[in-house]
Formats: sequence, C-alpha cells, structure tokens
Amino acid sequence: MTNPVPMAEIWRADLLESLHLGHAVICDDSGQIVQAWGDPQALIYPRSSCKMIQALPLVTSGAAAAYGLSSEQLALACASHNGAAIHTTRVRAWLEDLGLGDDNFRCGPQMPDDREARYALIRADQQPCQYHNNCSGKHCGFLTLSQHLGAGPEYVEIDHPVQRAVREAFEEVTDATSPGYGIDGCSAPNFQTTLAGLARAMAWFASSHDRNDSHSRAAQQLVAAMTAHPDLVAGEGRACTELMRAMEGRVAVKTGAEGVFVAIVPEKKLGVALKITDGASRASEAAIAALLVGLGVLDPGHPATIKRMAPVLRNRRQIEVGQIRAAKGLQRGS
Amino acid sequence: MTNPVPMAEIWRADLLESLHLGHAVICDDSGQIVQAWGDPQALIYPRSSCKMIQALPLVTSGAAAAYGLSSEQLALACASHNGAAIHTTRVRAWLEDLGLGDDNFRCGPQMPDDREARYALIRADQQPCQYHNNCSGKHCGFLTLSQHLGAGPEYVEIDHPVQRAVREAFEEVTDATSPGYGIDGCSAPNFQTTLAGLARAMAWFASSHDRNDSHSRAAQQLVAAMTAHPDLVAGEGRACTELMRAMEGRVAVKTGAEGVFVAIVPEKKLGVALKITDGASRASEAAIAALLVGLGVLDPGHPATIKRMAPVLRNRRQIEVGQIRAAKGLQRGS
Repeated sequence: MTNPVPMAEIWRADLLESLHLGHAVICDDSGQIVQAWGDPQALIYPRSSCKMIQALPLVTSGAAAAYGLSSEQLALACASHNGAAIHTTRVRAWLEDLGLGDDNFRCGPQMPDDREARYALIRADQQPCQYHNNCSGKHCGFLTLSQHLGAGPEYVEIDHPVQRAVREAFEEVTDATSPGYGIDGCSAPNFQTTLAGLARAMAWFASSHDRNDSHSRAAQQLVAAMTAHPDLVAGEGRACTELMRAMEGRVAVKTGAEGVFVAIVPEKKLGVALKITDGASRASEAAIAALLVGLGVLDPGHPATIKRMAPVLRNRRQIEVGQIRAAKGLQRGS
Repeated sequence: MTNPVPMAEIWRADLLESLHLGHAVICDDSGQIVQAWGDPQALIYPRSSCKMIQALPLVTSGAAAAYGLSSEQLALACASHNGAAIHTTRVRAWLEDLGLGDDNFRCGPQMPDDREARYALIRADQQPCQYHNNCSGKHCGFLTLSQHLGAGPEYVEIDHPVQRAVREAFEEVTDATSPGYGIDGCSAPNFQTTLAGLARAMAWFASSHDRNDSHSRAAQQLVAAMTAHPDLVAGEGRACTELMRAMEGRVAVKTGAEGVFVAIVPEKKLGVALKITDGASRASEAAIAALLVGLGVLDPGHPATIKRMAPVLRNRRQIEVGQIRAAKGLQRGS
C-alpha cells in the first residue's frame, strides 16, 4: 500500500473532484519487470483477475479433454459474467452434462448484473440462483475437475484437491510461494501475490505459445478461449468484453474486484497487472486502457477505449458534468 | 488533493486489501479549526452534503412560512432520499400544493434506491419519474422559492434568482467567496469550497440556537427538521437515517456524492466535514462514524455505528470474509 501513484482523475467542471491511486507492473516473458508505477511489490488479492490461473488445472489435469470441454466452456471458466442468458444457459447445460444441479455449486446466489435477466427475475418474483453468480462458469470448471479427480463435494475448501491444484498452479505461474489467502465473494480461496507476481503470471500466459510443455499448452488454450469469446468472459457493455473486442483477439484482459485488472499481450510476450488502492473499478478500467494504449495494442480512438480512458460524465438529464481521465504517464516508457 | 490521510481500511483475512484516504475538519462556532486530518484547505464540491445550505433561502426568504411548509417538508428539502413511498408521496403532494407537476422539475428521472419502489416500477414496466430522484425534495424547495419570488421556470440556471440566493447563502455560511461551481447530478449548481469552509458552515448551523437573527433561526428550523425526520433525509438502511436515529435527534448528519460527509453538533457548537479523495461512500460513512464517536456524541457500541465503523464483510454465502475498519486516529485529540 506504500507510494501508490495517480491512476485516474475525476473532474467536475474545472476542479479535480476525486483521485484514484494505484500500482501497475508490466513484466516480460523472463519474469523481469519492464516498467512499474508505484510499488510492484505491493501484496494484493488478484480476485477474479486470476480466473485463468484458477482454470489451469482444469486443463492440465486432462479433465477438460476428458469431458470434451469447448472453447466457450473454457472462456466461461475464466469469466466474471453478467448472468445474461448467453451465460446462464451455457452454465446450466454444463451442470447438466456433469449430472449435477444448482445445489452442487458453492458460489452462492447473486442477482445478475444483466438488466434483462435481472428484470425477468424481479417480474417473476423469483430469487436468483447460484448459476446466476458471476463466477458460476469458474465453479463449473471446479466441479468438472473435482469429478475428474473423484474428489468430494466441498470443492472450495482450502485443502480440497481442486484448491490444492489451484494453489500449485498459482505458485507456479507467479513464481512465488503465496504468503496467504482470503475467501472470495464466491467462497473460493483467493491467493495473495505481489503485483509483480501477478504480472509475471500474465507474461507467462502471454508467452505460452513459445513453449510446448503441457502447462503452457493449457495456457494457450485458455487465452485463445478468452479472446475468442469476449462476450462470455464478461458481458455486453462491460470493460473486458468491449476492450477485448476492440483489440480483435490479440489481447486477453480480465478485471478483478477491488480495483484489479490484468492483461495478457501474446504478440509482445508481456503481462500487465494493476491494482487501484481504493478498489474502484472506474479507475482500474481507465488505467488498463491507458496501459494498453501505451503498449500500442489498443486504439486510443476506439469508442471502447474512450469509454474507459476519458469518458464524459453525464447527469440524470444527460447534461455533461465532468470527465474521468486516466492519469498521464501510464504509458510505457513515459 | 495533497497529503490525504488514511480514513478507512478494507481487510480480507490478514491482508489490507484496499485503503481509502481523505481529509477531515472540525470547526467551532467562531469558525476556527479545532482539529484537522489531511488538508483542511482542500477544495471540494460538497455535493448533497450542503443541501441544508441550499434550503436556507427557502426559509430566510419567507417562502417556507408563506407556503406553510411543515417540518417534514423542510427535512425533504435537505434530503437525498431513497425514492421510497414515504418520500415520493410527500414530494408529489408538495408539487400538487404548488399547482405543479413532474414536468416542472429539472432534476431528471432516477430509479429509486428503495427496493420496494424500484421493484414496483420494474414489475409495472414503468420508467422512473423526476419525483423519484433522490434530490426531488430539494427541488420542491427550489420550486417553492422560485414561485415565491415570481421567478421563471429554469430554476437550476446559475443566474436564476433561486441559485443566486443559494450562492449568497453558501458564501455567507462558509464565510468565503466560492471560487467556482460544477453541475450536480440533479442539474443544480454545486459551489466549490474548502473543506474548512464546509466545516465552518456546519459549525454555523450547530451554533444557530445561540443567535437570534433570521438566518440563524432558519438554520435552527432546518436542523430541527433533519433530526426530527431522519427517515425522510435518507431512508431505511441508509447511513444518515440510522446514524441520526442512533444519536436521538442530538446531531444532524448528511452525506454527499464522491465521499463527502458532514455533521452538525449543536450541543458542542461544532461542525464536521470530510472528503474521501477517491469518492467512496463506504469510507466516508466509516470516517464520519469514527469522528462522531470521537466527539462523544455517537455510541461506539450502537449497531448503526458498528455497521459503518467496523462492519463485517460477508460473501454471497454469508461467510465472513473481511472487515471495513475506520482508520485509527480519527478521534478528537488523538
């Protein structure tokens, strides 16, 4: 938490109304820090930004192949989805393929962010199910791995074979022993790492096409799934979906709660990780867009970029009242 | 924005996951700073925290008396309400008393925060109206003053007699010329002030019972209305409502967007103002509770206090995953 630097500014008329600080790191495929802002050794929870790491054992174990998982299913395993019909129909079909039901989940119910799905529940006077939870795709992955391993039903317990496999993968790709863990919103353990460790992991994913070991091949499959199905990784209107679409499959990005964002840039074999110290998504989205523009992989003029880096803020009468601005200096080499 | 200090910590297991910084000031009735954290000269938008100032001309002009406004109506004029039935029925009745309708508002429509009201709109497939806007009580006050003054319908324009009167009141009670303004979410001008200026204004309200001029009597009326009707100032479950109830009418508190919170403490003739630099409400609520506990006017053991100063964070399965903690040192004299 020491020495964070400005990441995003909130302007109203001529006054800086609010300011978000944070840390960011870009790592290369050798695990070296290429550039850092703030403290690269800041210890963080990656939260949902590490879902592609949590999905690694699903593939490396052979479970994904044994269950014939599609690229769409792998994308959902890495997703924080909106609970829209495109997500929940696939999650429910996956559960059915496993011979399981909503009660087998351990993620808890969540009202969908998707407006159509949410309004449909409210109009039908129905409570959300666990399959609506934004992490239900990840949990389908956990359940598949658990079944493949012949393990017990409490797959989010820290000493369950699924979570032991996740920790092993996490420590392999961050190249460090995790000093501890917390329990995430979806009840899965979330392992602590430095921001540099998370960026190193993303660089490992970004350079996986250079290697031919089974873990790297699994990483390639997951990155390919994410970039092929940006709508499944988040949802309409969301930053991950829109930014991945804007980069046309060249880069995978993933948000995490409390202001985390990561990017996997295969063409440059670079990994990016950032944390807004106050946890704000509006700032993590502005900052990741600025970093990707700086890396030359995101068009600064694309509507999805402007929507994050420099969106005009409008009030309830749609009058322009201010602007979010990614902090200057969030560009490589600057 | 320089040198903010810790205001609230977000813990998950044994790791500080996120941190909120800010500024806070306590002023006495002579306008002097009694204690400050961070930079008391930080220039801010008070946003909705200054609604009792924006309501002053409604009373000082004689409009409130001429229209026979009740204590409930004055509380609504100072409110950021939830759009619950208790708010909207009173706002609609007030509009009708004025011979006006929803179209006369200039605040814009807003989906109510109140769950019952929101769900009712969704189930009826209806769009929210302007009277649902959390600021509609303030706008009823503006409309009343405008009608009393015989002014035109565009009452949120900066040079409209209503807003000229608001600026005059604002500069009187902050005891400073406002260096500029922005447009608020509800389209009304929001005048800039230093945090010390805002705290000074709150101390002026807090000591109004000591004075007998018409402006001070108006201030007393507004403070009495807020403390008498905490449910009208915000709504069920909200910090302003619950904290005012916990202090049993002794203290008025008011939140503002982007991390602002103020308190009026008549028994000590003190005013409090704070701004979380990143704009987070979870932090402004934690910090104002800590400051009020420090002033000896809020019971640290009251459930409403604990809910803001040290709430346990639970995930979607209601498992305890962390805690918000008001920063140590937010207590007077510490």
